[in-house]
Amino acid sequence: MYFSSDNASGASQKILDAILAANGGHALPYGADDWSKAAEEKVSEVFERDCAVFLVPTGTAANALSLAAFTPPYGAVFCHEDAHVMDDECGAPEFFTAGAKLVGIEGRHGKIAPDALAQTLAAYPRGLVKQVQPATLTLSQATESGTIYTVAEIAALAEQAHRKGVAVHMDGARFANALVSLNATPAQMTWQAGVDVLSLGGTKNGAIMCEAVVFFDRDRASDFLYLRKRGGHTVSKGRFLGAQMVAWLDGGHWLDLARHANAQAQALLAGLQTVPGVRLPWLPQVNEVFAVLPGKVDKALKSAGARYYDWGGRGLDESNALRNGEVLVRMVTSFATEPEDVARFVEIAKDAV
Amino acid sequence: MYFSSDNASGASQKILDAILAANGGHALPYGADDWSKAAEEKVSEVFERDCAVFLVPTGTAANALSLAAFTPPYGAVFCHEDAHVMDDECGAPEFFTAGAKLVGIEGRHGKIAPDALAQTLAAYPRGLVKQVQPATLTLSQATESGTIYTVAEIAALAEQAHRKGVAVHMDGARFANALVSLNATPAQMTWQAGVDVLSLGGTKNGAIMCEAVVFFDRDRASDFLYLRKRGGHTVSKGRFLGAQMVAWLDGGHWLDLARHANAQAQALLAGLQTVPGVRLPWLPQVNEVFAVLPGKVDKALKSAGARYYDWGGRGLDESNALRNGEVLVRMVTSFATEPEDVARFVEIAKDAV
Amino acid sequence: MYFSSDNASGASQKILDAILAANGGHALPYGADDWSKAAEEKVSEVFERDCAVFLVPTGTAANALSLAAFTPPYGAVFCHEDAHVMDDECGAPEFFTAGAKLVGIEGRHGKIAPDALAQTLAAYPRGLVKQVQPATLTLSQATESGTIYTVAEIAALAEQAHRKGVAVHMDGARFANALVSLNATPAQMTWQAGVDVLSLGGTKNGAIMCEAVVFFDRDRASDFLYLRKRGGHTVSKGRFLGAQMVAWLDGGHWLDLARHANAQAQALLAGLQTVPGVRLPWLPQVNEVFAVLPGKVDKALKSAGARYYDWGGRGLDESNALRNGEVLVRMVTSFATEPEDVARFVEIAKDAV
Amino acid sequence: MYFSSDNASGASQKILDAILAANGGHALPYGADDWSKAAEEKVSEVFERDCAVFLVPTGTAANALSLAAFTPPYGAVFCHEDAHVMDDECGAPEFFTAGAKLVGIEGRHGKIAPDALAQTLAAYPRGLVKQVQPATLTLSQATESGTIYTVAEIAALAEQAHRKGVAVHMDGARFANALVSLNATPAQMTWQAGVDVLSLGGTKNGAIMCEAVVFFDRDRASDFLYLRKRGGHTVSKGRFLGAQMVAWLDGGHWLDLARHANAQAQALLAGLQTVPGVRLPWLPQVNEVFAVLPGKVDKALKSAGARYYDWGGRGLDESNALRNGEVLVRMVTSFATEPEDVARFVEIAKDAV
Repeated sequence: MYFSSDNASGASQKILDAILAANGGHALPYGADDWSKAAEEKVSEVFERDCAVFLVPTGTAANALSLAAFTPPYGAVFCHEDAHVMDDECGAPEFFTAGAKLVGIEGRHGKIAPDALAQTLAAYPRGLVKQVQPATLTLSQATESGTIYTVAEIAALAEQAHRKGVAVHMDGARFANALVSLNATPAQMTWQAGVDVLSLGGTKNGAIMCEAVVFFDRDRASDFLYLRKRGGHTVSKGRFLGAQMVAWLDGGHWLDLARHANAQAQALLAGLQTVPGVRLPWLPQVNEVFAVLPGKVDKALKSAGARYYDWGGRGLDESNALRNGEVLVRMVTSFATEPEDVARFVEIAKDAV
Repeated sequence: MYFSSDNASGASQKILDAILAANGGHALPYGADDWSKAAEEKVSEVFERDCAVFLVPTGTAANALSLAAFTPPYGAVFCHEDAHVMDDECGAPEFFTAGAKLVGIEGRHGKIAPDALAQTLAAYPRGLVKQVQPATLTLSQATESGTIYTVAEIAALAEQAHRKGVAVHMDGARFANALVSLNATPAQMTWQAGVDVLSLGGTKNGAIMCEAVVFFDRDRASDFLYLRKRGGHTVSKGRFLGAQMVAWLDGGHWLDLARHANAQAQALLAGLQTVPGVRLPWLPQVNEVFAVLPGKVDKALKSAGARYYDWGGRGLDESNALRNGEVLVRMVTSFATEPEDVARFVEIAKDAV
Repeated sequence: MYFSSDNASGASQKILDAILAANGGHALPYGADDWSKAAEEKVSEVFERDCAVFLVPTGTAANALSLAAFTPPYGAVFCHEDAHVMDDECGAPEFFTAGAKLVGIEGRHGKIAPDALAQTLAAYPRGLVKQVQPATLTLSQATESGTIYTVAEIAALAEQAHRKGVAVHMDGARFANALVSLNATPAQMTWQAGVDVLSLGGTKNGAIMCEAVVFFDRDRASDFLYLRKRGGHTVSKGRFLGAQMVAWLDGGHWLDLARHANAQAQALLAGLQTVPGVRLPWLPQVNEVFAVLPGKVDKALKSAGARYYDWGGRGLDESNALRNGEVLVRMVTSFATEPEDVARFVEIAKDAV
Repeated sequence: MYFSSDNASGASQKILDAILAANGGHALPYGADDWSKAAEEKVSEVFERDCAVFLVPTGTAANALSLAAFTPPYGAVFCHEDAHVMDDECGAPEFFTAGAKLVGIEGRHGKIAPDALAQTLAAYPRGLVKQVQPATLTLSQATESGTIYTVAEIAALAEQAHRKGVAVHMDGARFANALVSLNATPAQMTWQAGVDVLSLGGTKNGAIMCEAVVFFDRDRASDFLYLRKRGGHTVSKGRFLGAQMVAWLDGGHWLDLARHANAQAQALLAGLQTVPGVRLPWLPQVNEVFAVLPGKVDKALKSAGARYYDWGGRGLDESNALRNGEVLVRMVTSFATEPEDVARFVEIAKDAV
């Protein structure tokens, strides 16, 4: 019963097979290999547009490098106040941008509120020398709260940004989970909605370590090779990244993996809704379930070896405030979550009431 | 006939098997997994000392992060003028140290000359505010020229450094190749000779992507976790790094791989010594052969599809200067180099004369 | 009627005289001159403690360098959400710290609320690798809202910080104004209350350009000379900084200048309180008056050439919200403010009602 | 007898008078004042071209900010191996560029040799990802060795740079000294010869602290205001920089000051040429004299209180190598050097032989 994060799972067999298959013979290093090229082609095909694609080993690298490509050292990066780039990367965006400022924006359940974005953009007028200059907006799809933006919401936020000359990045660590939940195409959810650059995350959804930075306009990627290299993120045996990315995208494998993860979250949700005393403060839209558990349920689950994340009280409305020893917890499912584990988790919760 | 670099090879089967074996079940992310812990223990065992070990995906990351751990932004890093950190990492050390200065030192065939180090250290006195401050010496073992320092040479350079309060880093991208060539123990070649921190390279010697930063004194590693994290080099599914490192070290596998690579270099050397007109300006000590080829030999080899690196004229003494269309080239062998390829390479060279 | 800022004034005659007096003969450069040494002694005398003192030309330099001396690149700087370092220095603290994160804390009228500090410190536990690490708390005395902390308040906030291993910086751009208002000694308002390093601002209070970074513990200043030098803030003709600082502190000149400025603010306050429709949302404690002006008063003053700063609506409680074209404005007085200008300003305001 | 550096002198009376004259009344802060505007106009007039001019308090700031405006973090700055930016600014260029690499180039007596520049540019081809990318060439006029480039030499080096897309910066800490020595116009020595941006130094030639960064193409200065601000180099009472720059340039005052300094160097040279045993390894072209002194002459001068700089043996040809206790020293004259001091210096030297 391992629901602490989707990166606690291993890799899909298909991706491991691809790594093995890529092993024979020699290949050019540093991303000049055929697998990396095939990955760029495959991404371009899936996104229905010629993209510049750069593979890196971690999601933090993908995010920080993407932001650095669009943000000068004296720039502002606008993000949700609970975003991964803000809270969970130990200052990587500040490091890679050489000191840009991340400006947190409010919004319920992990989603930037359009009004709050407007106010923030107004507070950072271009040309006011004493302040950092507006540069980049980053949207997490799915969000840290397991929610997703609709295509129309992305487009509206991106339009606000573009009107002020601000570029739009999408942190897609759980991109596939959002995509299948939204039933949109990759193109609709990104460049057609105004996204300029995407961190496309494979690791949380079945890869061993593989993320892609996807530029939807090649011209803006002109110096990315140098940024990646000096960041130490140009893997010498690039074939082992390329092979993962191709296998992940090929034949809709990525979507299958994400559908399984999301379905397990829905199963967990359905089960928890039958447990008296458990409250669901907001509904999961991808592979993350947030629930308020009575103290004894929490205790019983932990005693049984279940793993999940204590979320403090972040994101709870007053009407949902914690009472009498309740805890707000996050459970994440993955491509590898077994239905039996979900069922057992629910069973233990029920028994504890 | 692929001799361009050892990173053009894939991975050893044993390492791939270890990746597959590590795949089942769940594991804690970000290096808290059992495989990463086992890697730390294995490294400590092999180096006969309790070490703090941090796995990262690339050699540039290992080097730049190591240097950043010992060098303040206003510091000087002393290295050979042709070192990888100086010439081949697109400024990664400057980036990770927030602007330290790399000071190149002369020396034949890739090795820092003791006198030149003494002069350089004298030119950077501590406390002279207008200059960057002496911080770190980095030695490449093996060097970029395929040569190695003896244990005594390492100790003598390290002693010079320590006397001035300068820490010693070793870039061990080809550490195993040097080790088997020198017939020393890992301990002798590092901490017993004065090395404070080591980039231990697995990738060029059989891993898919796996390097370890090894601190021989835990106290000096106190903030490395943060440096690695904000550099985007903390891999979430750490088990896939840990598994590689353990498999690589286990049962002397790393030494076997390195012995094969070195032996192929010696075979190539022996073959080339029989080709009229080919000159060996200095002798290979690991898995890299540098040779001066007559123009027609070079042409014939390239026509036959052989791949290797044109080295310009770097490192040639006047007595060995290029004449009449000769070229200085570098050939690198690896764990995967097939003896048939070496033989064929030599055959073509002979036929071309 | 120039109330836009205290840096719109020139310098005091005594300081100009000191610059002239320092001009004759030769002097050692880069802060090794006798005037810089005298400044260090004078500061130490005034603060009743042996201090390490470094002169720099601007307040942004003093703040950013001070923070950099205590904050690693992966560190967090805690400050009021409206602090100068947060909003008015174009990212200088992020630049000088090589990418640390400034974390804004709430509090009425520019002062960090103790509870809010406690919550923030709790949210940044030491050792949680995914987050930046707690490093420095910075307090502005006086604040951006023209208010001041009492000595007890400073001590209480500093104690919270120190308990977590967090150093305490004071941004004293208007230190003298706060000091005379509080009727405390320099020692009481700083190191005796737990301040580790101070930006002591001369420029806003009568100097042409002169700020001092004051370390109350010499040991913590060990690498400041390098930070200052590579920041380009080591003035070669240091005598011209040293002479200003000595003249400013000598014979209580700095306090006289500050008393005049504060008194003019009180006069302005008293005058405005007699103008119908003008509201004072909070009371000035130093040389800054914040007032809500009816639209027609604002218009009349501007037509008459008065200069002051439109403050948006920042800091207003709901009970004081702007109504019917009112504007919240900031007026700053200085050592050079003439009483006639204050009187005329009030007169025009009255006439406009 | 103070010949250690020209920054050991105070300021010219005309410049001090200008500071006093600028003191009255109020002025807009942060460079928006009338004096800063007048300085921009005056520089534009003197250089016969519309220039974007930014005043800063130190030469290190002027150099580092100029380089940062043209050099990306992954860029190379080409300079003479003994340049001030390389050796005397504690890594400021690396800091302000966020980690660019300074590449030293050889050349006699402080001047970059055209052949050496060509070789270096060839060694840094654009697009070779593993290396830093060619960005900026910086020429010191006058050089650290007291020599100057002719206009034709500047033009030839700049042309080499521009052909490779490399911008040209001039470090003009002693610009006026070079100008009067060369008998060229400011325009001829800069933009007409291909210089893109200039550090125009007032401090070493009569100002208290005032340097200008001069862009000869406004379009390339678009983000300089932010770089200067976050560097802490935007002086709030900008009038005191503007007034210095205007007074310095006005009526040829800067040239008069420089002519005096240069003339004193020539007088010192003429005097030393009459002292048996003193050798002049190269001839001074501005206000710096380099001489090889017999040990006893050196001792006698120091005993008499003369101050100058021991230069090690840097820059000496073999034919001029130091013998029997000789020392190579640098003497710098300034606008304030008194002829009597020069005469006395020579007298003591003579007596010592």
